Amino acid sequence: MLFKNISILDENFEIKEDMYVGIKGNKINYVSSEAPILSFGDLYDGKNKLLMPGFYNAHGHSPMSLMRGYSENLSLQNWLTKKIFPFEEKLYRKAVYWATQLTMAESMRYGIVSTTDMYYFIDDMVRAIVKSGEKCNISRALVNPSGANPDGLECVKEMKETALTYHGFKNDKILVDNSIHAEYTSDERTVRYIAEYTKEMGLGMHVHVSETELETEECKQRHGGKTPIEYFAEVGLFDTRTTAAHCIWINDNDRDILKEKNVNVASNPISNLKLASGICNVPKLYEKGINVAIGTDSVASNNNLDFFEEIKTFALLGKIKNNDPSLMTPKQVLHSATRSGALSQGREDCGLIKEGFKADMIVVDLNVPNMQPIHNTINNLVYSASGKDVCLTMVDGRVLYKDGEYLTIDVESVMYETNYAKNKILGMF
Amino acid sequence: MLFKNISILDENFEIKEDMYVGIKGNKINYVSSEAPILSFGDLYDGKNKLLMPGFYNAHGHSPMSLMRGYSENLSLQNWLTKKIFPFEEKLYRKAVYWATQLTMAESMRYGIVSTTDMYYFIDDMVRAIVKSGEKCNISRALVNPSGANPDGLECVKEMKETALTYHGFKNDKILVDNSIHAEYTSDERTVRYIAEYTKEMGLGMHVHVSETELETEECKQRHGGKTPIEYFAEVGLFDTRTTAAHCIWINDNDRDILKEKNVNVASNPISNLKLASGICNVPKLYEKGINVAIGTDSVASNNNLDFFEEIKTFALLGKIKNNDPSLMTPKQVLHSATRSGALSQGREDCGLIKEGFKADMIVVDLNVPNMQPIHNTINNLVYSASGKDVCLTMVDGRVLYKDGEYLTIDVESVMYETNYAKNKILGMF
Repeated sequence: MLFKNISILDENFEIKEDMYVGIKGNKINYVSSEAPILSFGDLYDGKNKLLMPGFYNAHGHSPMSLMRGYSENLSLQNWLTKKIFPFEEKLYRKAVYWATQLTMAESMRYGIVSTTDMYYFIDDMVRAIVKSGEKCNISRALVNPSGANPDGLECVKEMKETALTYHGFKNDKILVDNSIHAEYTSDERTVRYIAEYTKEMGLGMHVHVSETELETEECKQRHGGKTPIEYFAEVGLFDTRTTAAHCIWINDNDRDILKEKNVNVASNPISNLKLASGICNVPKLYEKGINVAIGTDSVASNNNLDFFEEIKTFALLGKIKNNDPSLMTPKQVLHSATRSGALSQGREDCGLIKEGFKADMIVVDLNVPNMQPIHNTINNLVYSASGKDVCLTMVDGRVLYKDGEYLTIDVESVMYETNYAKNKILGMF
Repeated sequence: MLFKNISILDENFEIKEDMYVGIKGNKINYVSSEAPILSFGDLYDGKNKLLMPGFYNAHGHSPMSLMRGYSENLSLQNWLTKKIFPFEEKLYRKAVYWATQLTMAESMRYGIVSTTDMYYFIDDMVRAIVKSGEKCNISRALVNPSGANPDGLECVKEMKETALTYHGFKNDKILVDNSIHAEYTSDERTVRYIAEYTKEMGLGMHVHVSETELETEECKQRHGGKTPIEYFAEVGLFDTRTTAAHCIWINDNDRDILKEKNVNVASNPISNLKLASGICNVPKLYEKGINVAIGTDSVASNNNLDFFEEIKTFALLGKIKNNDPSLMTPKQVLHSATRSGALSQGREDCGLIKEGFKADMIVVDLNVPNMQPIHNTINNLVYSASGKDVCLTMVDGRVLYKDGEYLTIDVESVMYETNYAKNKILGMF
């Protein structure tokens, strides 16, 4: 496939107009202002359109699309204990399969090419994700509140099986991270056990960190004044590539540790507002040189996967948190949404429009009233674009979504089946 | 026109399914679960769709679409003095005409049916708005920093002419409000003069109030400790139907005054984040029973008119401002976006799906991945919808936008002409 006559967001996050971008197999093979001599098959006329890297959603729980809009206006504690946990107790495999497909459909609609995911029913999730053609860093969420010997735990067995079965699956489309759900849901022995096992296996780590003030304060009480980040660093959880989701209630020393340990932060601005958890101070993370990626969290607390909406909110919150409109440049923000996300997933050859990189890309329509006039395309991308201006999503060189058509997913069936599963779980028949 | 088999957001902001809604002329003539006996002409099949009141954008500056994305990451003061004011000095009539059409195209695309607007070049704005078929409460922004006698001012003359020429124009599609730009841009004599004249003429008032902390503090210094709201109340500016935009830096006494004087607040959440002005405490306004409407402000500080994005941000900020996720119910928020906005514009017969009301309505597509499954349609409207899920916009019974087609505006020409005007102003040829 050859994109011609198209603007691109290049590897330096600058706009180049009238470019040619050629795809061979799953990679970007050609990027130039000159027409290629070789043939690349299908031609895509990119007039009034922009080609940019797809979005790497750095934190999600895909099957929770089943709970979109299920409950509003509750505190985090009530939301979890009165609504989410009782619903989750009734989950079943097919429900997870269809809900994950729904999430993948929404993801490709909004330009997301890969998701760092944490949940369970991993086999069914992987089946749905592979069918969609999307990428995923999947992790089996591990909780051990009782402090039982981790060796005997079913979820630990599942976690290990997940790694052995799926890590590198489908030409690295599926990568496996391990996961401790959070500090407050497992005891120290379990965290140390998993940290050790993860290093041994050479896998990545995915963990919720300092999402709420309460969590952070209770951690200090439990662990001799140590914050979640201090505690996790000490027990060795950060000794491997790690995605730390949220990182709202953190201090300067925590930021120093994140930098020193090369921890990737996944900020989830909309979910954090919706549950009133707080606002992550992203400019302070940027200042330290920490890799900050962007996540949607699940649609149960968002409640969509519109990544352009997420990007914009991410940019706006960095400003208001510091009462300074000069913070969060559009380039920084676009880097976080793309390249930083890919790096957080250990996908070194993803997230840039660059020869030799994986062809994970999206096309954005600029020829719509909300994107005109054009003083500066990058500014318009961050602040004016709608998620629905994405008109093509490509993963590993394969077009998954184009102009209203979902090429790998039967969306009508998926919506029907997800509603059916939701009704069944709620006991409506 | 008859909508059949459609879900509606009814006059109590509840969802009713499988309804019939009939339009005669510019009004809603029939709302029922039973098919009408009378014929209503064209049939619209509303399967998997929702009919709701259109959005009343309570604060905007339409011609500023010319400056979309023109400058980012500046403080309000630098943004205004280094970028916006010098650009505005070079505005000309045709530029305003095309830019206003662009804004109207974007408005109808996003379900906005009416805008409370404050700017100048009023004749050209009105011409563009009337062509589009949208509604507008227009006001000629008045500034008099030098404190000259208002009787001799050109902008005062223009303001008076605007009222005489356009108030009630096109069967009340165009209403005229008067406007003092803000406390800091006119002296007290001018404010009193305009307040008096506005009451005499029986017009409404549109004013920026307490957008920034600096503005509020400087007002106190200038006016013996009085806040902008105390000052405006004292000089009589609130003795008529008033839209006070922003109201961020206000106190309990200010809120008492807003309630006592029945002032309508137009909150502009995204613009307020983008310029790092602050967060309006909407739950406290709701608590007092103040009518709170929602505005986009101009796209120079937003940078789009996606009203579903605005609604969601409005809801989220009310929660985070008070660290309480239980605040801002979806019903309150939808009321603010529709009926409250209509009331703020003095459009008593607008903003509800109700027999006898003006047919200002939109259709939202529910049959998309981001709106499924459906636990609760109202929750999905506030948190999951994209502005681009609007598939039909009707004003006064006339369809302006439907399924990608702009029926009153030649969008391609408008985008071309607006870019041309922008380039001309920037001296690019």
